[in-house]
Amino acid sequence: MPNTAPLFDRVALIGIGLIGSSMARAMTLHGLAGHIAISTRSTETLAIAERLKLGHSYSLDGATAAADADLVVICTPMGAQAAVARSLRDSLKPGAIVTDVGSVKSTTIRDIAPHLPQGVHLVPGHPIAGTENSGPAAGYADLFPGRWTILTPAPGTDDAAVQKVQQLWQGCGAKVKIMSPEHHDRVLAITSHLPHLIAYSIVDTADQLEDETKQEVITFSASGFRDFTRIAAGDPVMWRDVFLTNRDAVLEILGRFNEDLTALQRAIRTGDGDMLERTFARARGVRRSIIDAKQHTPDVQPVGDEAAKS
Amino acid sequence: MPNTAPLFDRVALIGIGLIGSSMARAMTLHGLAGHIAISTRSTETLAIAERLKLGHSYSLDGATAAADADLVVICTPMGAQAAVARSLRDSLKPGAIVTDVGSVKSTTIRDIAPHLPQGVHLVPGHPIAGTENSGPAAGYADLFPGRWTILTPAPGTDDAAVQKVQQLWQGCGAKVKIMSPEHHDRVLAITSHLPHLIAYSIVDTADQLEDETKQEVITFSASGFRDFTRIAAGDPVMWRDVFLTNRDAVLEILGRFNEDLTALQRAIRTGDGDMLERTFARARGVRRSIIDAKQHTPDVQPVGDEAAKS
Repeated sequence: MPNTAPLFDRVALIGIGLIGSSMARAMTLHGLAGHIAISTRSTETLAIAERLKLGHSYSLDGATAAADADLVVICTPMGAQAAVARSLRDSLKPGAIVTDVGSVKSTTIRDIAPHLPQGVHLVPGHPIAGTENSGPAAGYADLFPGRWTILTPAPGTDDAAVQKVQQLWQGCGAKVKIMSPEHHDRVLAITSHLPHLIAYSIVDTADQLEDETKQEVITFSASGFRDFTRIAAGDPVMWRDVFLTNRDAVLEILGRFNEDLTALQRAIRTGDGDMLERTFARARGVRRSIIDAKQHTPDVQPVGDEAAKS
Repeated sequence: MPNTAPLFDRVALIGIGLIGSSMARAMTLHGLAGHIAISTRSTETLAIAERLKLGHSYSLDGATAAADADLVVICTPMGAQAAVARSLRDSLKPGAIVTDVGSVKSTTIRDIAPHLPQGVHLVPGHPIAGTENSGPAAGYADLFPGRWTILTPAPGTDDAAVQKVQQLWQGCGAKVKIMSPEHHDRVLAITSHLPHLIAYSIVDTADQLEDETKQEVITFSASGFRDFTRIAAGDPVMWRDVFLTNRDAVLEILGRFNEDLTALQRAIRTGDGDMLERTFARARGVRRSIIDAKQHTPDVQPVGDEAAKS
């Protein structure tokens, strides 16, 4: 047991997938919440969360979980955020803090803020952490240490509320950065959304090959393709919502990517070895910067389908 | 010491980068070669190989290393294969076997075969193994266990020679598959060459962003981008030669990829969430096939720049 009072007396987690369940485990491990109330619309998922003892109370109704909560964390796919916020409106107590974990931030304020009563503080958040697995059984308490969580509070948001959300994430081991939602979405479009879109696309290209070749693609996948399939293994609904909500930033960076890929294609067609070698050598420099920034440690995956099958 | 005679009395490694040095270590570990003769054109690289005690004799001249060898392994970038084969011509003994480790196979026979004297057997090979590191210090004996090596001997190649090369790779721990060079190049175009081209392209796109955003791309790279930089960190000369030699197969599969990416782009633009979700869900199925085929184990990287910096 922690020897100080928890950061929050009561935390409600609305949605209990990979991120929600990892937060529940981390908050329990670090004594950050006196009571963790868990809610999900799925009877099956709720039963798993209860069997895993992820919280203290369980409900199919978000409003029940959110009643009297000091902190409400919306951990659903982004497409459900507006409906969730609407359903919680009448149960949120004055002074409560609402945050979320969605991968696109400019839409969080648009979707959630209009439904919150006066005196409730919205501090949108995005933990940049995850694995290819999803669901409550895939989470683990050590998902966040060493990773970043970005907070994007609107100008004028209560400072104390922002600080408490920051303390929550730091308490889970994460580093915290505060930036504007628009800037977040632009940076994530290149670091996360475009890589995932491309990975999904190449895996789909392979999936459409004739059966014999497809089987060999799987057999010989260790040569590069396998890494793409891991990136392209995330939750389809979550990623659908990412691309629907961060459309403009993704299309903009996709346009630049297409230009660059076309230039490489032309170099291959014309046999321009110098251009290819120059481009490939530059990429090594970027890799070196990432190693120097210590952002290269492989993800830890102690729990989940793949670990179990290894 | 092995308690049986080695598979080859004398093996010459022409080129001693990641693959060559890993072969040297694996052959030593498993007692597959009585004598390992190492050759490279680079004085510096040769000195490193000698300091690491990778072989028994060292030479800047390939012909010296190849003289009296039972097996000659050409481990240079593919662009140098023709010149290397020409330089070895007069030193190869009758009955010697020549193999290589190049990532494209339809050009190996074209580049090497014309230079080999009668009675010398060519068995082109490609170990599907590697890390993002290069050079003799990056190699390690355990690079090959569990990985595939593909052999692409021309019809009519001496059976005994093919079998001995197969035994060499199996002795190093690799699984061996024999196929036509054209088929190899088509499969590798999708499993390896296209993924690398795309990874290089996206890393280059990021590299051209304005400085502030670029710095943040590095800071937040753990969200997907980092995996691409690892794929795009291979030796630039080696990869240049891959794309110059496997041009047709790469351009063909790149065309398909572009079609698929354009369809996803259109779905994002028009807000077609169903199409996105369907595509993303299919990709999960491919991932599952790879996990079932046990082709998903992370690469082991006990040696090299990155391991040292972790």
